[in-house]
Order: sequence, then structure tokens, then C-alpha cells
Amino acid sequence: MNGKLIVFEGVEGCGKTTQISRSRDWLLTSGIQESLGDFGNQTPVIVTREPGGTSLGSALRQLLLEGQALQIEDRAELLLYAADRAQHVEEFIKPLLEQGAIVLCDRYTDSTIAYQGYGRGLELKLIEQLNQIATGGLEGDLTIWLDVDVEIGLHRARVRGKADRMEQAELSFHQRVQAGFSELASLYPERIVRIDASQNEEAVQLEIREILCQRFG
Amino acid sequence: MNGKLIVFEGVEGCGKTTQISRSRDWLLTSGIQESLGDFGNQTPVIVTREPGGTSLGSALRQLLLEGQALQIEDRAELLLYAADRAQHVEEFIKPLLEQGAIVLCDRYTDSTIAYQGYGRGLELKLIEQLNQIATGGLEGDLTIWLDVDVEIGLHRARVRGKADRMEQAELSFHQRVQAGFSELASLYPERIVRIDASQNEEAVQLEIREILCQRFG
Ligand SMILES: Nc1ncnc2c1ncn2[C@@H]1O[C@H](COP(=O)(O)OP(=O)(O)O)[C@@H](O)[C@H]1O
Ligand SMILES: Nc1ncnc2c1ncn2[C@@H]1O[C@H](COP(=O)(O)OP(=O)(O)O)[C@@H](O)[C@H]1O
Ligand SMILES: [Mg+2]
Ligand SMILES: [Mg+2]
Repeated sequence: MNGKLIVFEGVEGCGKTTQISRSRDWLLTSGIQESLGDFGNQTPVIVTREPGGTSLGSALRQLLLEGQALQIEDRAELLLYAADRAQHVEEFIKPLLEQGAIVLCDRYTDSTIAYQGYGRGLELKLIEQLNQIATGGLEGDLTIWLDVDVEIGLHRARVRGKADRMEQAELSFHQRVQAGFSELASLYPERIVRIDASQNEEAVQLEIREILCQRFG
Repeated sequence: MNGKLIVFEGVEGCGKTTQISRSRDWLLTSGIQESLGDFGNQTPVIVTREPGGTSLGSALRQLLLEGQALQIEDRAELLLYAADRAQHVEEFIKPLLEQGAIVLCDRYTDSTIAYQGYGRGLELKLIEQLNQIATGGLEGDLTIWLDVDVEIGLHRARVRGKADRMEQAELSFHQRVQAGFSELASLYPERIVRIDASQNEEAVQLEIREILCQRFG
């Protein structure tokens, strides 16, 4: 694969969507994509997300986040995330990386470990098995973990708008998720970089740019 | 589990839906459910199917069979079937079996092995892994394989109405599926009973009744 897969992770409201969009804008004008990607200053920078990066994925995203309307068992939920991911990797991410693009992805395998594993208490070995099946082994080249206190994140997300199925879960659930991200960051220090996301948007963005320059510049 | 899970398997048009419905009617009036189930002649006899036995399942069934409209990669398809099954087992089948009911299920794990494994050529080990995850190890007490030539089955299904995504696949695909069922029947002779489903409806139904009496009477 010639491109780069850069993943943004963290609890609700940590700033993934905000920062991914600012990072794309910066990448497209900064010139750094010349060294990152395969096309010099024409290197495409693509923003995508999980769940939901494909047509199948957006149908699944609707099912998964649609509130309490639909009863979904833990293992079924895990399998739906895996299906979304398998489709996303195969139909969308891999072809782009093969073309040498820079793909910025809003959540990926670590979210499944943090939410379904640490949050819901599903067996980590099972989740890793399913992540492996879904991705065929494709890992992010870099994962940016936007680390913010759960209370701050949830408050930001609440101000943003109507709470979805995940955001409605109780505080202790989100705290377990947060502990999961923290554990993952110490397990995979090469791949995952932590950023203090309690800072203001601009400060967070500047740290992200610095990391991208260090890693790929 | 006090109840019984009886699965009907076979290629499109072999007569699963027809025979499952006749078997239910017969079970409800024959008195055999007294020995089969846990409630004497009040034992509930429940018909269900995969994909689609739950609310989540019927949303997934629609996605899976909705024609060429939606691009679905092989592994994503496999994971969706597994998600449907996990929900079905947990929300629907297990509680019924715990109550002592007789559950008649239109397709189950063998269909996934036959269609996705033998038909689409996905790794059998992967499928067995996913079947295990989805069912938590719950097997059918008896699997009735309605064995009919693919051409006959597809012809019957075509007469029945508009072809879905699976029925539209090419003949050789269905022949591989058929070979899969045949292989499974020889691998698991205790669990899977073959019936010659090229016979007329009535003859097939009489054989099914005989097997149910032998096994559970
Ligand atoms: N560093 C920040 N400080 C304060 N508010 C922020 C910050 N980053 C994002 N926000 C706001 O918080 C809300 C959630 O941000 P968002 O990017 O949607 O988070 P996520 O995608 O991680 O859930 C949005 O309204 C956004 O404008
Ligand atoms: N033994 C049989 N002989 C001839 N036609 C049959 C027989 N069993 C079922 N059919 C007809 O074939 C079609 C397919 O049967 P169906 O029960 O829907 O199969 P399946 O559920 O296995 O796809 C239906 O129109 C049904 O009436
Ligand atoms: Mg977001
Ligand atoms: Mg049928």
C-alpha cells in the first residue's frame, strides 16, 4: 500500500470530527501531503468514518445508533461493527491506499476494543479475532488519540445536539471506554499518539500538525 | 434447555417454508409435541427463520436480499449473517428453548457453511469460528436436509415469484451450495437427516413425520 491510514480515536466529544476536518484542510494546503502520499501536491486526502463509510455502512450506522428502538444483543452489535468495517476496508480504504491516498478515518479498531471490550465487557480475545477478520490485518499507520475527560467530552457532545444510542449510555460506561483507550495507548506506543484534547481546538490542531510533520514530514 | 431446536435446510425451492409450516400444523395436532416438548399438549411450536427472526434480523434480511442495489463484500456478508444469528439465538431461540418450546427454524448454521463457504469459497474455518461466536455453541437437535436437484429447486422458486439476491446467482454457485449440504450430511450423520425432496409435498411431509416420531416420539 502506498498511501497512509491515519485514525482519530477517543470518547464522544473529544473532537475527532472537528480535528479530522481541520487536519484535512491543513494537509491539502500545507504541502506535507507531498511527502505523505504518492501524488505530490495532488495527493488526495480523504475523510471517512466508522461506522458508516460505505452505503452498507450507513445503513448499519443507522441501525446501530438509532436509539433504543431496536433491541441489539452485545455479540450482534460486535458483529455488525465488524461487518461495517469489513465492507469499509475492502470497498473503500484499501483501494484508496493502493492508489496512494491519505485516508483520515474517524474511529477504527481501537474503538471496538474500547467500547465493546472495556465498555460492554465483551471478551477482548473475541474482539481482536473479529477486528482481524474484518480488517484482514490492515492497521492504521498512525492513530491519534484525543484524550479528554469523559465529562468534558459528553458535555461538548450534548451541546452539539441530540444524543445517540452510545452517548445515552451511563457515565461509568464511558469511563470504562476511556480506560480502554488509555490501556491501548500504553500497549501500542509506536502506533498510538496521545494528545491532550482538553485544550482548545486550535492548540489541539497545532499538536496534530506537529505529529504529522514528525512522522511523515 | 428443555425444548427442541429443529432446523430445515436445503437449496432455494427445496420446500423448507412449505414443510416447516406443515410440520408445525401437524405437531400441534398430532400429540407428538407432548413427548417432544415440555408442556404436554400445550407445548408451543414456534416457526422462525434466518436471516430475519428478530426485528434487527428483518432489517438485516432486507439488506442481505435486497438485490444488486447494495454492494456487499463477501466477508461483510458473512459477518451480517453472523450478527443476525447472534441476535436470533440470544433474543428469540434460547429463551423459547429454556421455556421448553419446540422451535422450527428455516435455515441455520449449515446454510452459512453451504452458501458462504462452499458457494462463495470463503474459508470454512473462518465460518465455523463465526458460527461458534454467533450461536455460543447452540446446535440444532435435529437438522432436516431437504435434498433436491438445484435445477428443480430453482424452477420451483422461480414459479413462486420474484427472485431475490441469492436466487439470482448463477447455477454453478447453487451447485456448489448443494455439494456443501451433501458434505455436511456425511460429516454429521447423527444430527442431519436427508430427505428426498424431489418427491411431492405430501410424500416429503410423511417422511418428516416419521423422522420426528423416530427421534422424539
Ligand atoms: N478542543 C475543543 N474545545 C471545546 N470544544 C470542542 C473542542 N473540539 C471540539 N469541540 C466541540 O465539541 C463538540 C464535539 O466535537 P466533535 O468534533 O463532534 O467530537 P467527536 O467527533 O469526537 O464526538 C462539537 O460541538 C465541537 O465544536
Ligand atoms: N415437494 C414439492 N414439489 C413441488 N413443488 C413444491 C414442493 N415443495 C414446495 N413446492 C413449491 O415450490 C416452491 C418453493 O417451496 P418453498 O417451500 O418456498 O421452498 P424454500 O422455502 O425451500 O425455498 C413453492 O411455490 C412451493 O409451493
Ligand atoms: Mg464525531
Ligand atoms: Mg423459504
